Amino acid sequence: MKNYKPKNRLAAQTYIQGILKGDRVLLSRAITIIESNLESDKTLAKEIIQAILPYSGNSIRIGITGVPGVGKSTFIEVFGKHLVNKGHRVAILSIDPSSQRSRGSILGDKTRMEELANIDEAYIRPSASGDTLGGVANKTGETMLLCEAAGYDVVLIETVGVGQSETAVHGMTDFFLLLMLAGAGDELQGIKKGIMEMADMVVINKADGDNITMSKLAKRQYQNALHIFPQSESGWSPVVSTASAIKNIGISNVWDEIEKFKRLVDENGYFKKNRNHQQIQWMYNNINEELKNLFYGSKNIKEHLSVMEKDIVSAKISPVKAAEIMIQEFKDSF
Amino acid sequence: MKNYKPKNRLAAQTYIQGILKGDRVLLSRAITIIESNLESDKTLAKEIIQAILPYSGNSIRIGITGVPGVGKSTFIEVFGKHLVNKGHRVAILSIDPSSQRSRGSILGDKTRMEELANIDEAYIRPSASGDTLGGVANKTGETMLLCEAAGYDVVLIETVGVGQSETAVHGMTDFFLLLMLAGAGDELQGIKKGIMEMADMVVINKADGDNITMSKLAKRQYQNALHIFPQSESGWSPVVSTASAIKNIGISNVWDEIEKFKRLVDENGYFKKNRNHQQIQWMYNNINEELKNLFYGSKNIKEHLSVMEKDIVSAKISPVKAAEIMIQEFKDSF
Repeated sequence: MKNYKPKNRLAAQTYIQGILKGDRVLLSRAITIIESNLESDKTLAKEIIQAILPYSGNSIRIGITGVPGVGKSTFIEVFGKHLVNKGHRVAILSIDPSSQRSRGSILGDKTRMEELANIDEAYIRPSASGDTLGGVANKTGETMLLCEAAGYDVVLIETVGVGQSETAVHGMTDFFLLLMLAGAGDELQGIKKGIMEMADMVVINKADGDNITMSKLAKRQYQNALHIFPQSESGWSPVVSTASAIKNIGISNVWDEIEKFKRLVDENGYFKKNRNHQQIQWMYNNINEELKNLFYGSKNIKEHLSVMEKDIVSAKISPVKAAEIMIQEFKDSF
Repeated sequence: MKNYKPKNRLAAQTYIQGILKGDRVLLSRAITIIESNLESDKTLAKEIIQAILPYSGNSIRIGITGVPGVGKSTFIEVFGKHLVNKGHRVAILSIDPSSQRSRGSILGDKTRMEELANIDEAYIRPSASGDTLGGVANKTGETMLLCEAAGYDVVLIETVGVGQSETAVHGMTDFFLLLMLAGAGDELQGIKKGIMEMADMVVINKADGDNITMSKLAKRQYQNALHIFPQSESGWSPVVSTASAIKNIGISNVWDEIEKFKRLVDENGYFKKNRNHQQIQWMYNNINEELKNLFYGSKNIKEHLSVMEKDIVSAKISPVKAAEIMIQEFKDSF
């Protein structure tokens, strides 16, 4: 495996130069290399990332989440076009740990955001596939760096999966946007309290027609709910607004708030501080995941663990001693 | 260090025989060995635990928690005497990761539960000291096994620390009792929602005198609150009651509920299943903690990590690559 080289790979320098010139085709092919699990591709990917690293970071990274049905694709399409009209170059990525290894989702995404997909200043790339959230997050994070190096100054990272992916997106973005619906049954619509706490802005989407009154009510409710959370370290107080992506109402306001946020955190130093913290945390997340992989990934350890489990249950060995033996076995395996 | 032996240590068999005969003095001295950090004591402790292991497990393990001021000591004293009157032998342990290595707390505890401390059928042992919750929980867990082997058929484990210690206690007990007060300001009195979810029973203490009406109201409120949680795997629906430990009101009812719970979970198999799960989880908790200790406890790794942090912030290296290098360094260190 190690020396197998896919036939159509170019030299690292070709990708690097292409990305720095904003070449979309070479950017896409470099991202494919990042997403690949071949050993030769992994080496190539590292070389590319290392080279573009100093050119990354010059974007505002915006995380967008919301339950299915909230109108996320339409929102991103309309929001993305608004940003392009204002002169920005926008990259749209997503995190979906549950996604299948198929090209279907790309077509799906491009269909979802048809107009945006045909604009030169926008770049849409669906989620990398992978078995673990950590692995998928790594790939999305590195894709983000490449997009930045290619000159995209706004990166939107959408959560597609549910549950933990919001935390992963929050951990790699500067601004976290939560899309909600008015009166969709229970107050928080399956959004966990922890996710509300992450939000820098809550947008109540589909605020049009008969839904306007309900949306205004929901807006007040969310404003009240956000009040009970302690002040964020960023110094920013989360805002709540209503919007209708489909009617293009309230979209420009979202960007205005993000610009206000950016000015605030640039001035008070939080932007840089948080970015540094996120980058460092990225390393620690990888270390902690890899430590567990090292241990639990060993076939011998796995077999011995299941014996230990039985011996613990039948009181042949104490859990503390069993752990000691397993750790010793782990140490001896090197 | 390894061969140093404290002068007044006896042979392992002496402790083992003493514990199995219910000798309180030898039990106490064996627990001291478990709590010791001397290498020779650790070896001795393992021998003792290994020998008593088959005689452990024959108790009902009850976790008790509640914020300071809720009357926990008085409750445990009155509850413990009730159990002794019913013919039980009761061991009272506590988990307090913040406790100092001093004998002061023992005197403190014995004073707190003066009457119970003088009853032969009750055994009070305050928290082991330690730097990590994991370490303290190990020692309390092993102390519990010794108490069971010494014939104590009810073990009460009290949380003294706040925060994570409730989870540790919940992870080593069969029944989780939450003490609350009526009308003490905000609804949940600083008890996190996660802790409410663990409770098999909520007792509103100090329900006497002018406080009775408020306590009944609180009882209804907690009953409503507990309703929104999904059914526990045990099949038990948490109950809420009022009590006044100081006036000995509602105490026998607490034990009646615990006996009802025990009958239910014996019949439906949850008791045994949960015990097995807890014992196995105990091993995994130790393994995961030790994996992190192995990595982050290395001086070289620690120094290199701080260099890596700087290089990440200055975009000299990507977080993913930094993690890879650190993991390789870890592997090479064996």
